[in-house]
Amino acid sequence: MLHVLETVPEREIHRGFHGRIVHAGTMTLAFWRIDAGAALPAHTHPHEQIVQMLEGEFDLVVDGEPVRLHAGWVYVIPPGAVHSGGAVTDCRIIDAFCPVRADWLAA
Amino acid sequence: MLHVLETVPEREIHRGFHGRIVHAGTMTLAFWRIDAGAALPAHTHPHEQIVQMLEGEFDLVVDGEPVRLHAGWVYVIPPGAVHSGGAVTDCRIIDAFCPVRADWLAA
Repeated sequence: MLHVLETVPEREIHRGFHGRIVHAGTMTLAFWRIDAGAALPAHTHPHEQIVQMLEGEFDLVVDGEPVRLHAGWVYVIPPGAVHSGGAVTDCRIIDAFCPVRADWLAA
Repeated sequence: MLHVLETVPEREIHRGFHGRIVHAGTMTLAFWRIDAGAALPAHTHPHEQIVQMLEGEFDLVVDGEPVRLHAGWVYVIPPGAVHSGGAVTDCRIIDAFCPVRADWLAA
């Protein structure tokens, strides 16, 4: 099934986090455009998450461990890990989740 | 867990398909640099696959249906679908697979 990203509505899931969300059968992908300074509050979910940094710098904290992510870096957040973060610069990030983010299906 | 892509060895999984592979717990990501003209023979696997086109044009055929993929397009290949393809131009593509590509763990 084809998804042309520019036709997928952009949603501001958190303030400054503008995402185009694509759900498949076993995974969800989120294509983010994130504003410099935008902050992601600490949260957790049962999905494994793979953060793919395309552009920019993003400060991530996973279970208390901080890391500053750069373009070309990939970070695996285990299921259930508490994580938070903040965009140091404007960022482009793709997140992959497994299983599907059912909590994002309806909105 | 952090993966710095430029330190992940590039593997030529098929001729002209140069990939950096990152395995997580539930998913595998493949970051491809594909040479123009490279051809992917028809194959199938039980994993769902999401093709994320970053750069270039790629001709994909899924269960007999052809589609020419462009940058910014995303294509979901269902588990078990027969698919083949060819790079029209040099391409950069990220593939996400679920579950993990156990067949790529050892090599």
